[in-house]
Amino acid sequence: MPALDRRDLDFLLQDVLDLDALFARPRFAEHDRASVAAMLDTAERLADDHFAPHAAKLDANEPTFDGETVHIIPEVKAALDAYCAAGFMSAHADYEHGGMQLPHTVSMASSAIISAANISTAGYPFLTRAAANVIAKFGTEEQKATWLGAMLEGRYFGTMALTEPGAGSGLADLKTQAVQVGDGTYRITGNKIFISAGEHGLSENIVHLVLARIKGAPAGVKGISLFIVPKILGDGTRNDVRLGGLIHKMGYRGTTSTMLNFGEAGGATGYLLGEAHKGLSYMFHMMNEARVGVGLGAAVIGYAGYRVALDYAKTRLQGRPPAAKDPSLPPVPIIEHADVKRMLLASKSYVEGALALCLLGARLVDDSETAETPEARSRAFQLLDLLTPMIKSWPSQWGLVANDLAIQVHGGYGYTREYPVERLWRDNRLNPIHEGTFGIQSLDLLGRKIFADQGKALALLAEEMLKTIEAAPPAFAEEAGALANAIALVSETVAVLGRAAAGNRLDEALANSAVFLELLGHVVVAWLWLRQASVAEDKAAGATGDLAAFYDGKRRACRYFFRWELPKIRPQAELLQSLDQTCADMPVAAFG
Amino acid sequence: MPALDRRDLDFLLQDVLDLDALFARPRFAEHDRASVAAMLDTAERLADDHFAPHAAKLDANEPTFDGETVHIIPEVKAALDAYCAAGFMSAHADYEHGGMQLPHTVSMASSAIISAANISTAGYPFLTRAAANVIAKFGTEEQKATWLGAMLEGRYFGTMALTEPGAGSGLADLKTQAVQVGDGTYRITGNKIFISAGEHGLSENIVHLVLARIKGAPAGVKGISLFIVPKILGDGTRNDVRLGGLIHKMGYRGTTSTMLNFGEAGGATGYLLGEAHKGLSYMFHMMNEARVGVGLGAAVIGYAGYRVALDYAKTRLQGRPPAAKDPSLPPVPIIEHADVKRMLLASKSYVEGALALCLLGARLVDDSETAETPEARSRAFQLLDLLTPMIKSWPSQWGLVANDLAIQVHGGYGYTREYPVERLWRDNRLNPIHEGTFGIQSLDLLGRKIFADQGKALALLAEEMLKTIEAAPPAFAEEAGALANAIALVSETVAVLGRAAAGNRLDEALANSAVFLELLGHVVVAWLWLRQASVAEDKAAGATGDLAAFYDGKRRACRYFFRWELPKIRPQAELLQSLDQTCADMPVAAFG
Repeated sequence: MPALDRRDLDFLLQDVLDLDALFARPRFAEHDRASVAAMLDTAERLADDHFAPHAAKLDANEPTFDGETVHIIPEVKAALDAYCAAGFMSAHADYEHGGMQLPHTVSMASSAIISAANISTAGYPFLTRAAANVIAKFGTEEQKATWLGAMLEGRYFGTMALTEPGAGSGLADLKTQAVQVGDGTYRITGNKIFISAGEHGLSENIVHLVLARIKGAPAGVKGISLFIVPKILGDGTRNDVRLGGLIHKMGYRGTTSTMLNFGEAGGATGYLLGEAHKGLSYMFHMMNEARVGVGLGAAVIGYAGYRVALDYAKTRLQGRPPAAKDPSLPPVPIIEHADVKRMLLASKSYVEGALALCLLGARLVDDSETAETPEARSRAFQLLDLLTPMIKSWPSQWGLVANDLAIQVHGGYGYTREYPVERLWRDNRLNPIHEGTFGIQSLDLLGRKIFADQGKALALLAEEMLKTIEAAPPAFAEEAGALANAIALVSETVAVLGRAAAGNRLDEALANSAVFLELLGHVVVAWLWLRQASVAEDKAAGATGDLAAFYDGKRRACRYFFRWELPKIRPQAELLQSLDQTCADMPVAAFG
Repeated sequence: MPALDRRDLDFLLQDVLDLDALFARPRFAEHDRASVAAMLDTAERLADDHFAPHAAKLDANEPTFDGETVHIIPEVKAALDAYCAAGFMSAHADYEHGGMQLPHTVSMASSAIISAANISTAGYPFLTRAAANVIAKFGTEEQKATWLGAMLEGRYFGTMALTEPGAGSGLADLKTQAVQVGDGTYRITGNKIFISAGEHGLSENIVHLVLARIKGAPAGVKGISLFIVPKILGDGTRNDVRLGGLIHKMGYRGTTSTMLNFGEAGGATGYLLGEAHKGLSYMFHMMNEARVGVGLGAAVIGYAGYRVALDYAKTRLQGRPPAAKDPSLPPVPIIEHADVKRMLLASKSYVEGALALCLLGARLVDDSETAETPEARSRAFQLLDLLTPMIKSWPSQWGLVANDLAIQVHGGYGYTREYPVERLWRDNRLNPIHEGTFGIQSLDLLGRKIFADQGKALALLAEEMLKTIEAAPPAFAEEAGALANAIALVSETVAVLGRAAAGNRLDEALANSAVFLELLGHVVVAWLWLRQASVAEDKAAGATGDLAAFYDGKRRACRYFFRWELPKIRPQAELLQSLDQTCADMPVAAFG
C-alpha cells in the first residue's frame, strides 16, 4: 500500500481544512478540486515510480566524496529530473516566476506524498524551494533574475548555510566574515557545518544562502547578514567554496550533509541579500518554512512506518487471544492482539494527528498571505508563528514514536535491515535536532511566542479551539469538555510561568520549557483530533463500506487520543506550575 | 571516562545490595570485598583493552558469510580469548565444574562492565553461559561431562535455538521435529531464525539448545522438548545443522544472528535434555536468565550513552543562559543550560535506576539459590519471578530513552556516525524485542505473575517497599509518602483488573497490560531510587569532595524521579482502572 493514505489526505484537505475556500481567492482563481486532484495524482505517480524504488538503495549506498567529486546513485538525479519536469519545484511560485500559484497547502500535500516515499531524495528540492522563497521575498529584481528562475526550474539547487562548527544553536557566536569590495560584492570567509545538499552534481549550480558578519558589525545576533554565495560564479568559474568533507549520518543518508569552507583561497564572492545586519529576520523567514517542512517530514516518515506496520500486522499470523489458547486452532493475524492494536492505534493517532497539524500550518501560510482582510491575514500569521515550534517538534517526537512502534509491531523482523521500518526510524531521529532542537523550539515557544507576545497569539489559538468545542457533535461532548479543561489548564500554567518570568525569574520560568512544549503540542493535536472526529461524525451518516470504516477509524482515533494521550498533560502541568527546579539546580559535579 | 561509573557499581553492590552478607554463605566463603574488587578491576581492564577498542569497528564491519564460512573481524576472537583466559566464562560456576563460585551479583556486575564497552562481542559468552547453566541444571552427568566443561572453558560456545520463522512469540506453533532413533538419540529437522551466535568460527564447537516437538507429542506448548544439538559431533564430523543465512540487524551487529536449517541431509543428531515434553519449563529457566541479561545489556548501553553525553556536555561550549544573553560574554558549557541538565538528569535516573534494578535481580538469583532458609530462598525466587518482566523491559524502554537523549544532547553531532551515541541507540533498540517483546513481558507480568499467582508475589514486593519507606530518612519523607501512595494505587488497580479477570473477562483485563508493565516498572524503580537516596543520605554525613558530590547526585536523581517520573503513573492507573477497551475494540478495517 502507498506510504500515505490518499483518502486521509483528501479528508484533511477538503473536509477538515476547507481547501475549497481558497479557490475563491484571486491568487488561486485558476485552481479547483480537479486541478488539485491531478497534482496529487501526479505526486503519487512520481512517488511510486521515481522516489520509493531507490529509497532503501540510497540508504545503503550513501553519497561518497573522492576528494574531487561527490558521487550519488543515479536514481536520485533521475527522480529529481522527473520531479522538476512535472512542475513541482515551482508549483507554489508566482505565475511571473514560472510557477502555478498552487496553494501552499496543496504544495505541502504533494511534498507529503513524495517525502513519505523517500525523504532523502526529497531533501534536495525542499531546500531549494526554501532558499528560493527567501530570494523571492527579499532579493532585488536583479538577484531574482539571476537566481530565482533557475532555481524554480530546478537547474540550480539551494542550501541554507547557517550552522558553524563552534556555533550550532548559538547563532550569536557565528564567525563567518564578509568584507565588502569595490564592486559592491562581498568576500566571504569561514566554515559551515551540517549544510544539507551543500555539494552534489545534481544541478548546474548550488546557491548557498550564507549567514555571515560584515566586518565591523555589532556582536551577537544583531550583526548577522545574509548572503547569496553560488558554487559557480556568473562567468562560469568556480567560486571559493570548497567541500571540507561529507558528514556520515544515521539517517537521511542520501541527502548530503557537508562541511563547507568559504574563502580558503582568499574569499568566496557573495551578494548581500536584503539589508545589512538583518540576516536573522530573513533567516527566521526561511527557518520557519524549513521548520514546517521538517515537521511534515517527521509526520510522513512516521506515517510511512505506520502503514508498513499495519500491512504487516494484517498478514502476519501468530499466537491466539489470552482467553482462547487452544493450540489446535489456527494462529490469528497479529492485528487481532490487543497490544498490537494498541501500538497501531497509538501510531495512527500520532501520524494522522501530525499530518493534520502540518497541513493546518500550511493552510495558515496560505491564509497569512491571501486571506480576504488584513486582520484575517494577521491573525493567521500570529497563529502560524505560535504553532511553528509545535509543528516542528510534535511530529518529530511522536512521528518517531510511531516509527519505534512500527519496529515493535514487526518483532524480530523489525530490527533487521531487510524491512524498511528501521531505516524510517533512523531517518526520523534527525528531525528533533535539525532546524532547531526540541529545546530551542521550546524556548522559542514559551519565551518568544508566549511571554514576549504577552499571550496574545495563545488567546487566538484558544478562540479557535473554542469554535471546535462549540461545534462538536453530542457524541463527542466528553472530548469537547476535556479539551475545554485542557485549555483552562494551559491558561493557569501560562499564568504561573508568566508571573515568574515578569518577576525577574525568567530562567526559572523557562527552565522546564521542554515540558511546556510537549504539553501544548498534545493539546493542539487533541483539538485537531476533535475537529477530525466532528467532521467524520457528520460525514459518517451516509457512508458505507470502506468509507464508513474510514470515518469510524477517525472517531476511534480521536477517542484514543483523549483517553490515552491527553491525560498525560496533567502531571506535566502540575510540574510546570510548581516551578520545579530539580533539573536546573543540579550541580555539574553531581552528575557523576 | 569509562562507560560505567565504578563508584556507582561499588555503591550499588556494597551499600545498597549488601554484598558483604553473601560472603557469610558457604558457597561464597572464599570470597570477600578484595576478591570481588580484583574481579571487577580485571573486568575494567578487559573492557578497556579488549572490548571497547573494536566496538565501533565491529559495528561498521559486521560478520559476513561467503557460503562456506562466517568471517568476523579478528579483534572479537582476541577479546573473547582474553575474556576466557581471565576466567569470566566460568566465574559463577561450581568449583567442581572448574568455576570460582562467584556470586551471581558479582558476575552480573562484571558483565555490566564488559557489555557497556561492547555489547556485540559480549553477546557470545552471555549466550554460552546461559546455555551452560541449563545443561548444569538439567543435564545428565554424561551430558555435563561432554559439554559443560568445554563451554565453561570457552572452547565450545552455546546458543538458544527457540524461534522459528512462523512462530516468534507464539511458541505453541513450533514445528521443528525430533524423531528418536535406535541409539537413544534424536534426529532433528526444522528451521530456526534469529539465533544469536548460531554460526561463527570463534570456538571449536557450537552447542545449540533446540526446542523441538518429539513426533507424536501433544499440540501446543505442552508438547515441546529441549535438545542439545552440537555443530560438530563427538566423532569430529559435522552435524546436519547448516547456516541458512545471516540476518542483517540495525544493532548488535557484531553478534551473528542466523537462520539455521536442521536436518537438510536427513536429520541433525540431538540429545534430549531433561525429560520429554518439559522443554518449556527448561526454556523458561534459560529465558529468565537471558531476560535479566537483556535487561542488564539495555541498562548498560543506556548508561554508556549517558556517560558519553555527560562528557560532551561538560566540554562543548555553546550559548548563554536566557537571562544573560550578552554576546560579549563567552559561551558556556552546554551542561549549564537547564534543558541539557534536564536531559542528563532524566538519563541518570533511568540508567542508574535500571542498573540498580538488574543488580537487585542478580542479588535475588543469589538469594534464591543460597539464602539461609528455604523460606528465604523461596521468597527471593518469588520476587525474582515477579520482577523478571520488569528487569527485562524497564531498562529496555528507559535505557533506550537515555540513548535517545544522549543523541539529543549532542545536537547535530549526535546523529553522525563519528560519535558513538547513534550506535548505542541502534544497539539498544533490539532489547525491547528479543527474548520476549514488551507486550509478551506485560502479559507474563499481569497474567502469570499476578493473576495466576493471586497477587502473592506482589504482596511480598510491597512488603519490601514498605521496609524502605519505614527506613527512609526525614529528608525523604515526601518521597516515602509518594511511594506509599503509589503502592496503594497499584493495589487498587490490580484489584480492579483482577476482578475483571476472575469475572470471565480475562481478555479485557489483559488488554492494556503494557500500560501496567510501564506503571509497575516505574514504581519499582522509584522504590530503588528511594533505597539509593536513603543510603546516600546516611553516607553523605562524613563525605567530602567528589564523594560528597556523588551522594548529592544520588539524592537529586531520586528527587527527580519522584517529581518528574512517578507522577506519570496516575493517568496510567486511571486508564487501567477504567478497563478502557478503545484499543482492543478497534475494528481492523478502521485502521485504514
